[in-house]
Amino acid sequence: MSGSMGLNLRLSIFGESHGPAIGLVLDGLPPGLALDLGQVQRELERRAPGRSKTATARQEGDQLNIESGLFNGRTTGTPLCARIANKGQQSKDYSQLARVMRPGHADYAGYVHYQGYNDYRGGGHFSGRLTAPLVVAGAIAKQALALEGIGVYAHILRIGPVEERPFNPLGEAEEELAALAGKPFCVLEEAAGQAMEAAILAAKEEQNSLGGVVEVMALGLPPGLGEPYFDSVESRLAHGLFSVPAVKGIEFGAGFRLASFTGAEANDPMYYDQAGRVRCSSNNNGGLTGGLSNGMPLLLRVAIKPTPSIARPQATVDVAKGENCQLTIAGRHDPCIVPRAVPVVEAVTAWQLYDLLLSAKKWVK
Amino acid sequence: MSGSMGLNLRLSIFGESHGPAIGLVLDGLPPGLALDLGQVQRELERRAPGRSKTATARQEGDQLNIESGLFNGRTTGTPLCARIANKGQQSKDYSQLARVMRPGHADYAGYVHYQGYNDYRGGGHFSGRLTAPLVVAGAIAKQALALEGIGVYAHILRIGPVEERPFNPLGEAEEELAALAGKPFCVLEEAAGQAMEAAILAAKEEQNSLGGVVEVMALGLPPGLGEPYFDSVESRLAHGLFSVPAVKGIEFGAGFRLASFTGAEANDPMYYDQAGRVRCSSNNNGGLTGGLSNGMPLLLRVAIKPTPSIARPQATVDVAKGENCQLTIAGRHDPCIVPRAVPVVEAVTAWQLYDLLLSAKKWVK
Amino acid sequence: MSGSMGLNLRLSIFGESHGPAIGLVLDGLPPGLALDLGQVQRELERRAPGRSKTATARQEGDQLNIESGLFNGRTTGTPLCARIANKGQQSKDYSQLARVMRPGHADYAGYVHYQGYNDYRGGGHFSGRLTAPLVVAGAIAKQALALEGIGVYAHILRIGPVEERPFNPLGEAEEELAALAGKPFCVLEEAAGQAMEAAILAAKEEQNSLGGVVEVMALGLPPGLGEPYFDSVESRLAHGLFSVPAVKGIEFGAGFRLASFTGAEANDPMYYDQAGRVRCSSNNNGGLTGGLSNGMPLLLRVAIKPTPSIARPQATVDVAKGENCQLTIAGRHDPCIVPRAVPVVEAVTAWQLYDLLLSAKKWVK
Amino acid sequence: MSGSMGLNLRLSIFGESHGPAIGLVLDGLPPGLALDLGQVQRELERRAPGRSKTATARQEGDQLNIESGLFNGRTTGTPLCARIANKGQQSKDYSQLARVMRPGHADYAGYVHYQGYNDYRGGGHFSGRLTAPLVVAGAIAKQALALEGIGVYAHILRIGPVEERPFNPLGEAEEELAALAGKPFCVLEEAAGQAMEAAILAAKEEQNSLGGVVEVMALGLPPGLGEPYFDSVESRLAHGLFSVPAVKGIEFGAGFRLASFTGAEANDPMYYDQAGRVRCSSNNNGGLTGGLSNGMPLLLRVAIKPTPSIARPQATVDVAKGENCQLTIAGRHDPCIVPRAVPVVEAVTAWQLYDLLLSAKKWVK
Repeated sequence: MSGSMGLNLRLSIFGESHGPAIGLVLDGLPPGLALDLGQVQRELERRAPGRSKTATARQEGDQLNIESGLFNGRTTGTPLCARIANKGQQSKDYSQLARVMRPGHADYAGYVHYQGYNDYRGGGHFSGRLTAPLVVAGAIAKQALALEGIGVYAHILRIGPVEERPFNPLGEAEEELAALAGKPFCVLEEAAGQAMEAAILAAKEEQNSLGGVVEVMALGLPPGLGEPYFDSVESRLAHGLFSVPAVKGIEFGAGFRLASFTGAEANDPMYYDQAGRVRCSSNNNGGLTGGLSNGMPLLLRVAIKPTPSIARPQATVDVAKGENCQLTIAGRHDPCIVPRAVPVVEAVTAWQLYDLLLSAKKWVK
Repeated sequence: MSGSMGLNLRLSIFGESHGPAIGLVLDGLPPGLALDLGQVQRELERRAPGRSKTATARQEGDQLNIESGLFNGRTTGTPLCARIANKGQQSKDYSQLARVMRPGHADYAGYVHYQGYNDYRGGGHFSGRLTAPLVVAGAIAKQALALEGIGVYAHILRIGPVEERPFNPLGEAEEELAALAGKPFCVLEEAAGQAMEAAILAAKEEQNSLGGVVEVMALGLPPGLGEPYFDSVESRLAHGLFSVPAVKGIEFGAGFRLASFTGAEANDPMYYDQAGRVRCSSNNNGGLTGGLSNGMPLLLRVAIKPTPSIARPQATVDVAKGENCQLTIAGRHDPCIVPRAVPVVEAVTAWQLYDLLLSAKKWVK
Repeated sequence: MSGSMGLNLRLSIFGESHGPAIGLVLDGLPPGLALDLGQVQRELERRAPGRSKTATARQEGDQLNIESGLFNGRTTGTPLCARIANKGQQSKDYSQLARVMRPGHADYAGYVHYQGYNDYRGGGHFSGRLTAPLVVAGAIAKQALALEGIGVYAHILRIGPVEERPFNPLGEAEEELAALAGKPFCVLEEAAGQAMEAAILAAKEEQNSLGGVVEVMALGLPPGLGEPYFDSVESRLAHGLFSVPAVKGIEFGAGFRLASFTGAEANDPMYYDQAGRVRCSSNNNGGLTGGLSNGMPLLLRVAIKPTPSIARPQATVDVAKGENCQLTIAGRHDPCIVPRAVPVVEAVTAWQLYDLLLSAKKWVK
Repeated sequence: MSGSMGLNLRLSIFGESHGPAIGLVLDGLPPGLALDLGQVQRELERRAPGRSKTATARQEGDQLNIESGLFNGRTTGTPLCARIANKGQQSKDYSQLARVMRPGHADYAGYVHYQGYNDYRGGGHFSGRLTAPLVVAGAIAKQALALEGIGVYAHILRIGPVEERPFNPLGEAEEELAALAGKPFCVLEEAAGQAMEAAILAAKEEQNSLGGVVEVMALGLPPGLGEPYFDSVESRLAHGLFSVPAVKGIEFGAGFRLASFTGAEANDPMYYDQAGRVRCSSNNNGGLTGGLSNGMPLLLRVAIKPTPSIARPQATVDVAKGENCQLTIAGRHDPCIVPRAVPVVEAVTAWQLYDLLLSAKKWVK
């Protein structure tokens, strides 16, 4: 089974790129949550293509329809189904995709897995379009988290060779974080963003593509969320985030750099702050110790590989003929998916954190 | 719930460091699998402390007892329970651990999560001892995978500042990989191992500790394992591996380096080899595309933070007094957990891969 | 979470009686299964109201739309979403339903559970309309089971005071079983059906309603399906069947009558038949021993309570006023839901059996 | 997978009748619950054989050892493992059991399911001994439920031809219910109990066995527990209760009798009582409407078939020889398992109700 995950807030996603619709069922939402659907739609638009010169010119125009689980503007507590009709697919001959496997794509592995029966048009179920349902789930979770004083924010840390300053692990000003979602290019520093855009346009010019790193911070998480071992916060978040196509690495806090630290450098000293809360004077653990939140800002980074669809000729195989061949991919493709991945990464993080928060409520006395 | 995971091969772990026993229930093993328990015990010994000068001098002497699920040397298909009695815990006063939170440890987050009721002696349920049940599950999975021609191998890629050569992503000679498990220090090149050991001893001398990176390769995986989205191979492996204490990052294939690649560099060109199998001429995707295995070697790396238990005085909090305080941790602790983590990381990988392999059998015609 | 179940074939259902649509996501179907959608539609029509004088006159006209998971007439192996638009709801004032709790209905328990936020129009998510998605899942499962030589059949054993002959536990002629689905009133013997219809019409006349018993037989099940304890065939089937509104009892084989049998009467003697298969000369266990199928016909019965919506005045409570009150339910309601429940009960049985069959494939050598 | 179930309180059971031990892992218990282990042991003794002339003379002497999850007499919130060593198995030749399938037992279905690798000694994993872990889980759940004012009680309603008066669906005096557990033969009326004992001894004399019905009542359940459809209270309880060996039927409230009721008879009229609580003046629904608790006493009955092990010669098959044969079962067997099943049925009910109660806490505001 490919399309379902969650402990208390089970998300099922469905759809193919060129089928009638994509969508989601989100089961486990508490009743009575007032949903701002305009805000959900805005999150979808952050993910949508066709908004900037660095993205594909395809116009997907994702229009959300709520099928169930909402009544008088509030969640009912029953499964919420949302549907996004597919439209604007160019009618063309996709039969080549059934035979010629695109390097770096799911084509060959999917062909084997589905025994040749998968819908190959536009990548089918593997299409990045399926991240739209993730954004919907995350947008709902963000609204629920906000009521608990929890915010989830992300920026583009790196695109290809260009990196901007990372988040301060001890926290960023909430207004600066909140401003990120409103920017067409989610960066802290405008100059870095311009350099990233320039790098993307240069790659596009060369019929090439770029990857990058998205960094996420969550503020306001209470300590003690998560579980040791199999429901550690890292386990749940990584499980969800590796479901996002093109993510190839995840690290929490100082992450891979911790491998080069000594214990004296890595350990985060603890103290009571003036409000009587337990805090750390550094945050190499990214807000997580023993698999649980410790009250410090949650910090993680995901590595996203370059878009595999590039216009250059590539060596590959034709599985119908059983022969090696050359492939030149036509069509409109993002030269860099990273900017559009930002709301997706935020969404999955928010959904998983809200799920963990619901788990914690079971033991409240 | 903290202690259970698996689709077809559900592993439940239990135990506290200073309770009567730790152990596991592994449910879903096919019947008729001949188990070499000596081999399982040897895997446990790879994880055991007290074997080298770079590890803690504690002697845990883990002795495995099979309680159920094995009959006449073969699995019955019913839940396999294995128990490891705790022994050799030094009797001493642990009451300080209940009050004074060790930086970098689960103590504070666990205290909040369990509302003060957790068994704090020796870290309780958060103790690294709980990785012994993971090793048992993995040792069984390795034997099952071997029957299908699949091998899982790991080496220490880095300890603190010392790094040895990484695995060749296109594969290593199987005999060299197989030799790794027999080495007290799992490295490809002896010289690197000696430099790593020296670095660990130097850190120990300075009352400090080191982290590192473990790299894993699996050979023989058929293409098409896994699922898109929530049961992607990356999702399942990351979920399992972030359950291992001290793991703070995971990457597949070229991982975080892919963020700096172009698409033309990152894409792995495909071809038919002389045996008619689809192969890639590079393996930046680490054997995984679209969340599924593609027939190339599986390659992943996990970052492990330095042991947080160091003998230097550290700033922290006393939650009973509600005050800041200094803590000096006494006792015998690993100056570097990485060598002992190798069999654990292999084990979790093997268990998850075998679980995914069982999923794939459902669709065999 | 209310709307999701399954081991290998996870079904999520969604929708409210008066929302835009109801539907399902069925995840885990093997790829390549050729689906006869006309047959699925015909199963839906068996469940639909308005077909006979014994059912409600409402015309629901359920039209199935496949949103995903089907390509060129075959399953793709990805989640199959099917949507049925709601239409024909009478526009009227439902505000009484929000306040005045119908006896025997979910109204009061749902009001408490959902904290007053549930969609009360037409019963909302509790509506019998939500059995239409179950029928769709079951119709698909039946097609898959048929390829394995397995058939699932049901008849109306009892309506109110009228009972027809039960299935022969040792099996019925397959053609007679297959003919049942084509009958507007699923009974073996026409005379019994006429008496049942007469009883229903008499109850309707008296502003009353009737319940009944549906009996199910599955032929062709291989021995060894299921698991001891928590995934016993009885456990999975009962879990699914008690999800059908109005079901209040389930029994397998001789069921409650076994409480009065002696062991010598209850035990089913075993023998090899001429084809070398192990058979039983009686089938009091209904094809299930130790929680597993034993190769004999599967036999179960479910008790269905009378429709709680009756036109007579009833004593109940007004939760808005906090007062006792009288309620007279208007509108068109089935005087007996049993005939329409037959395809639902068959469907849930088929879905669960196919799920168990997929589990068994994992251990095939 | 056979041995694991639960939403918030996952129970895994393990063991074979003649292996080293049987036991359980119960994961999800809230921390800080003070456990009375003496009470748990007493519940085990209620299930134990050898206590009366109507039960087997085998002395199992189940001694509970807590392996984890308990510290200073309170639950820690981590997985609680409890182990019961097997002892007193008679050493004898069990090889006949591997070949000759006992009618009415799991032998043949288990032989096929486990491909001949199951431990057949004493029924192996299918043994009724595996209900001891269920009793442990239930005894813990009962203590947690008691803190919330919820009690779970059962009596023997019928053994063979002898039936005592059923529970009053509107409730019984709590002291009378509480007294049941202390009786060696759990009946409301002593005379009925004596008649039941006499019937069992007569059956034993005739080398025969008897079945029966156990009736359960839970008092104090708040309204609104459960979910519509797949997590209905009926679905969860039936799923758990059909895991108890020999259970062949379950009904809630008036159950199968509802099939003969009219709606006017079946509907439970509602009113506010003097304390302002919503009550029903009858309880044909057994405290459950729409799959949810409605605040009335929960009422269910399970049908238990006669012990299949009887001393008379029986016709069966020898799977090693592929031939029909006669079997005479030797050894000490219960002529009626019903009295020992009472604490098991209570236990499963209590465990499932507590699990549902934990679910409900997630939405508490």
